[in-house]
Amino acid sequence: MTEPLAPGSVIGILGGGQLGRMLAVAASRLGLVAHVFDPDAAAPAAQVAARHVRADYDDAEALAAFAEAVDVVTYEFENIPTEALDRIEALRPIRPGREALRVSQDRLVEKRWLAELGLRTAPFAGVDDAASLEAAVTQVGLPAILKTRRFGYDGKGQARIADDADTGAALDAMAGAPAVLEGHVDFGSEISVIGARGLDGAVACFEPGLNVHEDGILRTTTLPAPLSHAQRTDAVLLAGRILNALDYVGVLGVELFVTPGGPIVNEIAPRVHNSGHWTQDGCVIDQFEQHVRAVAGWPLGDGSRHSDIRMQNLIGADIETVPELAGSASAALHLYGKAEARPGRKMGHVNHWLGPAAP
Amino acid sequence: MTEPLAPGSVIGILGGGQLGRMLAVAASRLGLVAHVFDPDAAAPAAQVAARHVRADYDDAEALAAFAEAVDVVTYEFENIPTEALDRIEALRPIRPGREALRVSQDRLVEKRWLAELGLRTAPFAGVDDAASLEAAVTQVGLPAILKTRRFGYDGKGQARIADDADTGAALDAMAGAPAVLEGHVDFGSEISVIGARGLDGAVACFEPGLNVHEDGILRTTTLPAPLSHAQRTDAVLLAGRILNALDYVGVLGVELFVTPGGPIVNEIAPRVHNSGHWTQDGCVIDQFEQHVRAVAGWPLGDGSRHSDIRMQNLIGADIETVPELAGSASAALHLYGKAEARPGRKMGHVNHWLGPAAP
Repeated sequence: MTEPLAPGSVIGILGGGQLGRMLAVAASRLGLVAHVFDPDAAAPAAQVAARHVRADYDDAEALAAFAEAVDVVTYEFENIPTEALDRIEALRPIRPGREALRVSQDRLVEKRWLAELGLRTAPFAGVDDAASLEAAVTQVGLPAILKTRRFGYDGKGQARIADDADTGAALDAMAGAPAVLEGHVDFGSEISVIGARGLDGAVACFEPGLNVHEDGILRTTTLPAPLSHAQRTDAVLLAGRILNALDYVGVLGVELFVTPGGPIVNEIAPRVHNSGHWTQDGCVIDQFEQHVRAVAGWPLGDGSRHSDIRMQNLIGADIETVPELAGSASAALHLYGKAEARPGRKMGHVNHWLGPAAP
Repeated sequence: MTEPLAPGSVIGILGGGQLGRMLAVAASRLGLVAHVFDPDAAAPAAQVAARHVRADYDDAEALAAFAEAVDVVTYEFENIPTEALDRIEALRPIRPGREALRVSQDRLVEKRWLAELGLRTAPFAGVDDAASLEAAVTQVGLPAILKTRRFGYDGKGQARIADDADTGAALDAMAGAPAVLEGHVDFGSEISVIGARGLDGAVACFEPGLNVHEDGILRTTTLPAPLSHAQRTDAVLLAGRILNALDYVGVLGVELFVTPGGPIVNEIAPRVHNSGHWTQDGCVIDQFEQHVRAVAGWPLGDGSRHSDIRMQNLIGADIETVPELAGSASAALHLYGKAEARPGRKMGHVNHWLGPAAP
């Protein structure tokens, strides 16, 4: 299938969290229908999708029925079990493709892949046990961060190692899971580029935004980021190289450290990304629609930004500030429909409109 | 109930067309859940609502079950049968309230109500038969337009009377329905104001847009409209008077003729309005979210506009231009998920982003 999907076609989304929710809404703007696969009855995306298949990822029958009812399958998270992907791919195209998932599901594989592409990463080494951790510490130096190779997000599955005394506890925190040790990078700021590549190979990137994290969780992304023209261009070209090397179709998030020696890739995510939520109120075509356009074979938007925006995540008890935020005429609210506000849980975000973009 | 509805609360929407669809999406942004009542299995709003009650408006049981499952009821069209409204109102608040429906469901009642409020309308007279039509022609003059008092939209239920020879055919076109004869207004342009009033009585209006109709159907709305500061202010104040006089809660569309002697009210619609679709890409808080905010008892946005926009309706075969429009980076598409493109049927719209609003 290389023709654009006609309005009325069905996009299948694996994962029904907030990203799936906003993808489903974007699909509706293009006259496309969204089906969501998620085991959770309270999946946020189910409230705005035409169909919610509530089943586990090892339910072969449900996966097949889901795939057969849609025209193309995409996903909102990268840790989908391989067997589930195999079953779906036998029936329908999966976009972005398997190579992007293979690379991004494993931090060690990802860093090796980026290094082979000639891109800079933090110094790293694989860790399976105490002996390989000792060798890794010697290789990358301290301080460093030990991270599980798989299933980590929002600072989970990570342990800091300040000095040799911390190594035992850090290894214990991995609970036997294969890990990667990442050396310290002395960076000035963290930015991310939300890039997109169409089915026809066209690439379009949104402008890099400045990210601020707290406790390993993104708090704000601000546009424009305080970058030179060269830094902006470098970041966008780098994202383009990754998109092309993966023969990618869809939106990809690339987190970068800004250093005097140029950008260092922190990580890539083969999906719409929290640091791209600002596009909803800063661009004519946002990252969610851009992703749907790519997987549906439609032309991409060009990524141009019309407004300055500061995206602020609403995490856990932050949701209690909604009445106050609702009183601000420059605050665009995006709440996720989650009933319970647990600490660290992303409940919504707000895009603060700061003014028109400088021409 | 005067407290704002908490996130997770349910908005019931009577009518599942494109307006209901966009209201449901706006509700999701505020973390609210949308239920839609519509007899049509293919109702566009059903694709993005948490629940679709598919039943007729005379199905008392279905109406009661719908009302009991929601916190507040609103609607996307004004011609809801009175009995259905009575049944719902016994169980849940309906916003906007019954007075707005009473006034706007009947063109003659509406014109009399506007005149009593001291607002200018086209000359008009009620018509029930050949004798009253003859009297009406004498009173308002020719040319004129004969319109059914109820159930008219997009130019339907209307007949032009250029001279006395046309009166018989015009009366026949009413098929015995009570009608109103509207005299000719020599206007320079038609604009509309999308106004909103909150549960607390606060009023916020969007800036008037310039409307262009063809064959009785809106084709484009353009912002900014070529109006003087005084004309803009007059239009907004007029909408505010209507909102207050109706003790209104929600968004209301007011169509105005611009004349040298000041604005003349063409008609009012107690709901989100096609001529307000530009707000989706021109404002931080659009008309759909504004309406949901009002009916949910939330604070209103202030209606400020950040961008110049030309909204273009996609009617019938216009849907075939979507591939071309999708290739434009400044075209924000909003398609309605309707399978069949009949002549005159609204299939979607596109907001052309023209540039930042002048400060």
